[in-house]
Amino acid sequence: MNNIVVIGIGLIGGSMVKDLKKAHPDTKIIGVDKNVDHLNQALVSGLIDEKSDLNAVKTADLVILSIPVDASVSLLPEILDLVSEDTLVIDVGSTKLDACQKVEHHVNRRNYLACHPIAGTEFSGPQAAIYDLFKNKTNIICEVEKTAFKLQERALQVFSDLGMRIRYMNPESHDKHIAYVSHLSHISSFMLGKTVIDKERNERDIFDMAGSGFASTVRLAKSSPNMWTPIFKQNKTNVIETLDEYINNLNQFKILLERDDFEAIFDEMKNTNRIKDILKGIA
Amino acid sequence: MNNIVVIGIGLIGGSMVKDLKKAHPDTKIIGVDKNVDHLNQALVSGLIDEKSDLNAVKTADLVILSIPVDASVSLLPEILDLVSEDTLVIDVGSTKLDACQKVEHHVNRRNYLACHPIAGTEFSGPQAAIYDLFKNKTNIICEVEKTAFKLQERALQVFSDLGMRIRYMNPESHDKHIAYVSHLSHISSFMLGKTVIDKERNERDIFDMAGSGFASTVRLAKSSPNMWTPIFKQNKTNVIETLDEYINNLNQFKILLERDDFEAIFDEMKNTNRIKDILKGIA
Repeated sequence: MNNIVVIGIGLIGGSMVKDLKKAHPDTKIIGVDKNVDHLNQALVSGLIDEKSDLNAVKTADLVILSIPVDASVSLLPEILDLVSEDTLVIDVGSTKLDACQKVEHHVNRRNYLACHPIAGTEFSGPQAAIYDLFKNKTNIICEVEKTAFKLQERALQVFSDLGMRIRYMNPESHDKHIAYVSHLSHISSFMLGKTVIDKERNERDIFDMAGSGFASTVRLAKSSPNMWTPIFKQNKTNVIETLDEYINNLNQFKILLERDDFEAIFDEMKNTNRIKDILKGIA
Repeated sequence: MNNIVVIGIGLIGGSMVKDLKKAHPDTKIIGVDKNVDHLNQALVSGLIDEKSDLNAVKTADLVILSIPVDASVSLLPEILDLVSEDTLVIDVGSTKLDACQKVEHHVNRRNYLACHPIAGTEFSGPQAAIYDLFKNKTNIICEVEKTAFKLQERALQVFSDLGMRIRYMNPESHDKHIAYVSHLSHISSFMLGKTVIDKERNERDIFDMAGSGFASTVRLAKSSPNMWTPIFKQNKTNVIETLDEYINNLNQFKILLERDDFEAIFDEMKNTNRIKDILKGIA
């Protein structure tokens, strides 16, 4: 690859080009970002080799589209309008159906591969970019058959450079299941943070009582609202369904408490301990 | 100290005596546990120097009572019946009001110091015991004025050996606030685990989609039902109150989604991002 254009030089895009530059030191990394500060930071810190604008995609071998999902879906057709036949465009968003539908009939649909690398931290911006963020993590690819063979091949090489395992899935299934294993966790964590902050507003010392358990459960409440608001918007139907089930389970638990049915409470927790085995597969 | 009796040789009791033996190599550690396997494991692995029964507390300098809170509250008066004037008894439970009330009028009340070291992991049993579990963690002490001066002094030395910072609080306040910063996190996590497991029962590959965010949020769902059922029982009123507020916040978030009020959703998340500063103080 001669050059990679990264649109949105934050945690995900930044971490990707960090690893790719290491694997391919001669490849030029070109950054595009509406946020001028981020772009300058990325240049100074060596994350990118030069700054540019959207026209840079015309001659790119790889375009990484790593911006919030609303902006991503609206920019994707414009990018496909500009690219050459040999340009691979990947996105990294946490929702896949809207993006796939948006470019379904685009003349350059074959230049695009819909991806969701399941990796991240609760931090954002170019300073949050780190090496090996994607190592041994899962990358979900949707509608692979709609991408040109040659570009599929290039994409698999890129993901191999990043150390990722690949799973193929249709965008509807992706959005449905990711609502459970990712989007719901974020709401659960944000609302836990809100509940405690609201309650303890006048109790300055209370957080001295919080331990690592609280810190872990509420960690995702540090996440960026710029990134997460459009995800909830695009995946609204699935997210509401998961939220309904979660609220229902919490209500059931409350009813068991009110009824002093501690045997059933014990059983609920015992059954859910199965999560230990399930989590073994997750780094 | 000549000898320490640890009643319940699991994660908390085991980790305490690990550090205390290191600080005082000549002190004899005597283990008492209904679970014979745990007791033998603790002996073989060197966590304790010998096994004994409840009568061992008669000549102990320090008794660490580290068993589930229902058993702890019911055993505490029996222990106080047996101890000598110079024996310090501490407990480590996550609820404090029931214990303090239970021994309020006990003739040996002054031998007891009610404590809650805010430290732990999601693992349990003697194999889970580790060094430095309590280092730089908070220890909440309740009703310190009811403990004999000389034994208060000994307790502070023990907590200093463990590297803990001390906070004093009345048991009512402890139980109320700990419901928010600890007990609610556990319910939130257990019910998240349940929701996802129930939904994905027939989807064997789905957990491949789960990332570190899900793992972090659901971590506490690995916790022991033996330990947590009696905590929820003893702190039922406070826990139900926190759960009500949490469910209410989740319902509000759902309503915002249904109304497509994504500006308000953004604001909710932005406001809750303050948790970043709050968590800075937590290891």
